[in-house]
Amino acid sequence: MRIARFSPAKEISVSPLYGVIDENQMISVLVGDPIYAPITFTGEKLNLADVKLLAPVIPRSKVVCIGKNYADHAAEMNSEVPKEPVLFIKPNTSVIGPDDAVIWPAMSERVDHEVELAIVIGKVCKDVKKENAKDVIFGYTIANDVTARDLQKVDGQWSRAKGFDTFCPLGPWIETKLDTSNLKLTAEVNGEVRQSGTTADMIFDIPTIIAFVTQVYTLLPGDVILTGTPAGIGPMPEGSVTTLTIAGIGTLSNPIIKRHKK
Amino acid sequence: MRIARFSPAKEISVSPLYGVIDENQMISVLVGDPIYAPITFTGEKLNLADVKLLAPVIPRSKVVCIGKNYADHAAEMNSEVPKEPVLFIKPNTSVIGPDDAVIWPAMSERVDHEVELAIVIGKVCKDVKKENAKDVIFGYTIANDVTARDLQKVDGQWSRAKGFDTFCPLGPWIETKLDTSNLKLTAEVNGEVRQSGTTADMIFDIPTIIAFVTQVYTLLPGDVILTGTPAGIGPMPEGSVTTLTIAGIGTLSNPIIKRHKK
Repeated sequence: MRIARFSPAKEISVSPLYGVIDENQMISVLVGDPIYAPITFTGEKLNLADVKLLAPVIPRSKVVCIGKNYADHAAEMNSEVPKEPVLFIKPNTSVIGPDDAVIWPAMSERVDHEVELAIVIGKVCKDVKKENAKDVIFGYTIANDVTARDLQKVDGQWSRAKGFDTFCPLGPWIETKLDTSNLKLTAEVNGEVRQSGTTADMIFDIPTIIAFVTQVYTLLPGDVILTGTPAGIGPMPEGSVTTLTIAGIGTLSNPIIKRHKK
Repeated sequence: MRIARFSPAKEISVSPLYGVIDENQMISVLVGDPIYAPITFTGEKLNLADVKLLAPVIPRSKVVCIGKNYADHAAEMNSEVPKEPVLFIKPNTSVIGPDDAVIWPAMSERVDHEVELAIVIGKVCKDVKKENAKDVIFGYTIANDVTARDLQKVDGQWSRAKGFDTFCPLGPWIETKLDTSNLKLTAEVNGEVRQSGTTADMIFDIPTIIAFVTQVYTLLPGDVILTGTPAGIGPMPEGSVTTLTIAGIGTLSNPIIKRHKK
C-alpha cells in the first residue's frame, strides 16, 4: 500500500491530509494519520496529479541515521567498515518533502547528496529483537541524507553538517509492503547518474539495524531510520535538481537553492 | 519566576500540570503549558513537597548540545578549544526528570556525569542575532549531559554515547529570570564534589551560542540547548546518586541503576 501525506493543490490546508494511492494514480483520502489511526476511508477520492505531496512523515522525535553502511561508500570516504553501526541524528526540523528546495547554508562551500532507503517506524519500541523487527516497521520511503561535506570534516561531529533545516528530504510516499533485500537505488543530479547501488550491499541489514538502534533509543511512531548510502556521493551544484529513485518505491526530486551570505 | 512541571503525588496523572513556585514553596497551578499559553492561574495551590516534579520540558524537536565549551574540560579531554561551537544532538527520548533513574546501558562499561546550564527556548526561531538572543529564551534549568565515555571514544560520533534513553536529566524547574554571566555550577557524586566551575568560563557565551545554533537549526518552543560542562567529569558508579547544583536555579539529583546484560 502506498500512503501519501499531501495538501490539496492551490489551497492552503491547515492540516495535511493522508491517503492511499491506487494503480490509477487516484488518492483515497484517509481519516487521520494512518501511523496513529486504523485505515479508514472518508470516501473522497482525488487525482494524484492535482495535489501537492508533502514529506510523508514528520518524526515526533528523530531521524536516526546509520553511517558507512555500504562498503564502497566507506572506501570512498577513506574509512574502514565499522564493526557496529555508527549512529547519528538528524532533527525533525531538517525534514522537507518532494520538490521542496534544499537551502544551501551560507556556512558551507559544498553540499552533497546521499540516496538512502528510509524505514518509517510504526510503534513505540525499545530493545526489539531481530526476529521481531518487521513488527515495528510501518513502511519505507526515500531519503536524501544531505551533507555539508566541508563542515562534516571541520567539526568531526556530523550533527551540524547533516542537520541543517531542509537537509532531510523524504518521499514521495510510504510503501508499506516491500521486499527490501535487493532494491536498486540511484541518485541523479540534473539527469546524470551519480550513485547506483543495491540494498543487498548493506553491511548491517534492517533487522540488525532496528535491534541495535532500539538498544540505544526508544523509537516513537513516525520516527525514521536512514540505512546508509552507496558510493558516488558528490556535490549538488547551485540551482541543480537531484532525483533519487529506489525500485519499488518511486522517485524523490528536490532542487537546491543557494543562500547568500548576509 | 520558577515554573515547574509536575504530577500530583500518589495520583496517576494523564497530563502533567504546570505551576509557579513561590518563596513559601507553594505551587500556583497554571492553565496549560506556559511555553505555549499565557500565564493564567487556575486558583489552585499545592504544596511543593506533595507533588512529583517531572522534567520541566519535553522538547518537541531536540536538545542541542555544545561540546567543549569550557577550556578546562577541553584540556582534560586532551582536546583543543574549538574555533566554532561543536554541535551534537540528544533526542527528546533521552529526557528524564528530577529523581528519575539514569539507566546504565548494557553496551557501556563507563557512564559519566556532566553538569550543564540548559537554555529552554520559548519561540520558533531561526537566524537569531546575538542582540536578540534574550527574546527567544523562555528560561533556564539544569542538565546532566550523561555520557557513555567508552562508546564516545569507540564511535567517534557522540549520538549513541550521549543519546541513550534517560541520558538527559533536566530540572528541577525552569527559572525565567536569571543573570547567567557568573553562576557557580557543581556536580557531586554521593555527596563528593567532582565538578565545580562557573558559567563565566564558557568559551562561547549564550548570545553567541543562540546565534550560531539558529544559523543551523530552526528551534521550536520547548527545545533545549545545553551549554557545555566544566572540568571534573567522571563516572557515576552503579547505585550512586549524582547531585547537580547551579546557583540561582537549584539542585537536580538522579540515581543510576545498572541494566544487566540479557
